[in-house]
Amino acid sequence: MYTMKELKLARIEAQNGQKTVVAVGSLRIGRDFVIMAGPCAVESEEQTLSIARKVKKSGAHILRGGAFKPRTSPYSFQGLGEKGLEILKKAKEETGLPVISEVMDSRQIEAVSACADILQVGSRNMQNYTLLKELGKVKKPIMLKRGMNASLEDWLNSAEYLLAGGNPNVILCERGIRTFETSMRNTLDLSIVPAAKRITHLPVIVDPSHGTGRADLIEPMCLAAIAAGADGLLIEVHNQPSCALSDQEQQISPDAFERLVPKLKKIKQLMNEIQP
Amino acid sequence: MYTMKELKLARIEAQNGQKTVVAVGSLRIGRDFVIMAGPCAVESEEQTLSIARKVKKSGAHILRGGAFKPRTSPYSFQGLGEKGLEILKKAKEETGLPVISEVMDSRQIEAVSACADILQVGSRNMQNYTLLKELGKVKKPIMLKRGMNASLEDWLNSAEYLLAGGNPNVILCERGIRTFETSMRNTLDLSIVPAAKRITHLPVIVDPSHGTGRADLIEPMCLAAIAAGADGLLIEVHNQPSCALSDQEQQISPDAFERLVPKLKKIKQLMNEIQP
Amino acid sequence: MYTMKELKLARIEAQNGQKTVVAVGSLRIGRDFVIMAGPCAVESEEQTLSIARKVKKSGAHILRGGAFKPRTSPYSFQGLGEKGLEILKKAKEETGLPVISEVMDSRQIEAVSACADILQVGSRNMQNYTLLKELGKVKKPIMLKRGMNASLEDWLNSAEYLLAGGNPNVILCERGIRTFETSMRNTLDLSIVPAAKRITHLPVIVDPSHGTGRADLIEPMCLAAIAAGADGLLIEVHNQPSCALSDQEQQISPDAFERLVPKLKKIKQLMNEIQP
Amino acid sequence: MYTMKELKLARIEAQNGQKTVVAVGSLRIGRDFVIMAGPCAVESEEQTLSIARKVKKSGAHILRGGAFKPRTSPYSFQGLGEKGLEILKKAKEETGLPVISEVMDSRQIEAVSACADILQVGSRNMQNYTLLKELGKVKKPIMLKRGMNASLEDWLNSAEYLLAGGNPNVILCERGIRTFETSMRNTLDLSIVPAAKRITHLPVIVDPSHGTGRADLIEPMCLAAIAAGADGLLIEVHNQPSCALSDQEQQISPDAFERLVPKLKKIKQLMNEIQP
Repeated sequence: MYTMKELKLARIEAQNGQKTVVAVGSLRIGRDFVIMAGPCAVESEEQTLSIARKVKKSGAHILRGGAFKPRTSPYSFQGLGEKGLEILKKAKEETGLPVISEVMDSRQIEAVSACADILQVGSRNMQNYTLLKELGKVKKPIMLKRGMNASLEDWLNSAEYLLAGGNPNVILCERGIRTFETSMRNTLDLSIVPAAKRITHLPVIVDPSHGTGRADLIEPMCLAAIAAGADGLLIEVHNQPSCALSDQEQQISPDAFERLVPKLKKIKQLMNEIQP
Repeated sequence: MYTMKELKLARIEAQNGQKTVVAVGSLRIGRDFVIMAGPCAVESEEQTLSIARKVKKSGAHILRGGAFKPRTSPYSFQGLGEKGLEILKKAKEETGLPVISEVMDSRQIEAVSACADILQVGSRNMQNYTLLKELGKVKKPIMLKRGMNASLEDWLNSAEYLLAGGNPNVILCERGIRTFETSMRNTLDLSIVPAAKRITHLPVIVDPSHGTGRADLIEPMCLAAIAAGADGLLIEVHNQPSCALSDQEQQISPDAFERLVPKLKKIKQLMNEIQP
Repeated sequence: MYTMKELKLARIEAQNGQKTVVAVGSLRIGRDFVIMAGPCAVESEEQTLSIARKVKKSGAHILRGGAFKPRTSPYSFQGLGEKGLEILKKAKEETGLPVISEVMDSRQIEAVSACADILQVGSRNMQNYTLLKELGKVKKPIMLKRGMNASLEDWLNSAEYLLAGGNPNVILCERGIRTFETSMRNTLDLSIVPAAKRITHLPVIVDPSHGTGRADLIEPMCLAAIAAGADGLLIEVHNQPSCALSDQEQQISPDAFERLVPKLKKIKQLMNEIQP
Repeated sequence: MYTMKELKLARIEAQNGQKTVVAVGSLRIGRDFVIMAGPCAVESEEQTLSIARKVKKSGAHILRGGAFKPRTSPYSFQGLGEKGLEILKKAKEETGLPVISEVMDSRQIEAVSACADILQVGSRNMQNYTLLKELGKVKKPIMLKRGMNASLEDWLNSAEYLLAGGNPNVILCERGIRTFETSMRNTLDLSIVPAAKRITHLPVIVDPSHGTGRADLIEPMCLAAIAAGADGLLIEVHNQPSCALSDQEQQISPDAFERLVPKLKKIKQLMNEIQP
């Protein structure tokens, strides 16, 4: 089998088989199943607070929201930046939900850290090694999204940068790879979840929102991700998906999210019974 | 969304939203959840009968086994051919399990039909249109595997060949696509299951054996496939996987299969409750 | 480096370094640079004869034209079949150009052989091993197109089926692979030309028409293919590209072809000087 | 055809059809054909000076050399950093060759700019938008390598970030995309050269060293790149390829480079005659 002996810290053997558990408030990611939900981008205080309250009520554990947004075109909405971080801070204070938000550059680490409980490295930065080295020096948990063309080996080597830098609080996130298939935005690679877990002790989250780019596929792929062994989900929720300033097609409404969560809990409970 | 209006018969609208149900003996594929299991290749009477008895006892509904084998190298074991079909016939008679087996060429249709209840079109032949046209004239159910580089649109167009030819008994089977990822044989694309079901009324089976090429990933990907909405599974089971004449890495033992089936049933039952 | 020791006959070592030369009339493919040109599909006698005369006059060595057409949709024009072969025969008799045409099924071999000097195996049939085995018994040269997702190893193994069957007259043809890039129909992989030639003694032709799917890219990719070491080119030429019954976007006019050929000859001549 | 109307500055129409010419010393990239050569990584003063002298003598126009190296594993040689820049500066002073070197992070821009005449953005940073925005404010020419999974549209949108930021001196560089093919490190996509030139006025360089990862394929792919219309080449040259601290397999020796350059000039001259 695939051993990846070049990994010193990310491999299962490095922790004698003990899984990494990342503490975020009272959450234990890697042990407790975790649902991260929220808008693709923080667009306004009203939008973010409204969504935060709703996903909290429906059972989300962590609020996601992008203040710095990596966008393909320079003319697309680039995120609210520091103002977005302020809004996330308010949402956190009001709801008590820990926050995850993306950091795109070393110089944003301080500002994002002041608000977010987990720093997200986006797919497009998975091999931004300078950023990874800086994040290795940080104490905050890092969620490292898989690059669109990253092999499992590339991905775990990027995680190794974080670990080797001194930050043990690393969470992986599968979010779809780029293939020839055009009926979806990306091809969500759920087999990478158990494949990664054969090699590494790090928790693996699945993001079906980017992974498929289609709101109508979120539910089946959430359920499948849990069945494949994911430690949690990242789900984009927007109060008015069709008016979202980014990724309209893939965000679900708070109502859809509310209907979804009980199903996720049921399948997770069954998985605990099947694979204790 | 993706509409594929060029499809006349394969689209959901063509049957006013009614799902296709393919009858195989008392099974109703598309309505009943179905487990197909058996060796990659029929290697001997003893091997096949032994596996057939065991998978039957463990709860498989259909016996799979290849008599004609498409192999990358001309020097690899090419299957037992007609002798293999004879063996499958015996296994069917003894166990009562319906049989699925691959047909690689128009001239094999008659022989394979005499033994098999479902004719399989392999990935490498998904766009062998001459074969598809011939199979459109047949009454036997056809299971059409997705090509390694076939888009959803290509796949459904190939199904359309079968339907347009006059054979309504078509089953789709996702078996992994070819991507840059090398830690697995293929990338099993589970999102194609719900994506296909948004477009077509045809049942969709998942083959995690070819889809991953790794025995250690069969269980999680079987569970995930059911959660994603698959109508059934195709699982390679071999009495001595390490001695198999083809695809050693991906076949599981009858014992592993026996432990797997109850889990599959539990998750399927839950799915029926969640999504009635 | 990549050795592919499983190949017995296709490897360079099998012929002590001597390149395969396939004789077609007075042409020596693998030694003489060869230009194959003609319509994607034979549509009518008038169309085919008109194109044949023009490409002959412009310097083409071989006439291409499909009588049996593998089409994604069953509702697309499927080719004229045997009538198309008759037309090709006439075009050959009138112009003296040898003909290459596709064979999609074992049962077509006899009919296509009666008319064509080279039998083409299309991309979608590159791993139709039953067909390859039958073509191994034939004496006519076979041009084996690379599958859209075929690795070099897969491709050469398919060639090995032909060689092992007893037919030494095998020509390879690169015609683009399927990738994530959508601005072209396929990604023409010119690096496979020298990479193949490091391993095998077989001639390698390049088809930029399917390889790019865009008429405006034919010229640069023809020139590049020659510079990369291709033994010949396959170029789709249609008298009225915009009215073609298949692959409209990628066919060039006879006039464009006439302007192209002298450039091809010049770069080929230079290559002979640079790499004698 | 593919229009990419969202591009405001990178499209051909934005300059009324006039090609961008990037001045580097007396070179006019986009008008003059340019050969960039040098080691993958600056390893020592002796190594770099020795290679610089040789490639200068053989006809290179620009010296390449990495001081900051993006490496998959944190345990691989990471480049000499600022010391490497010092060495490049000496090589430039001695040979008169302008220098191109990679910048991986906004904070390196000043240091790299002090030494290099062209700043390179590597494939892994093609969508590092924060870096692109910073480089838009710089006056130095930027060479933007295509990401391993970047569509033409993604790539040109990244160039648009640079242009929109105020830096008109943008050069594109194709360096291979990631596909299923494993006999080469990447699949060098030469068709993107003419395809890009149909859309944009920016010069396009080709890097066959990373594009193939194989020294034995450099020559044919250099020749093919020129024939496809490339404005220049980036070729890795190392005095002892087998001892290189990175990318051993793909660097050629100064002697091989010396033999290569006259061939490149001949084919470029012919291209000028063919397509004046």
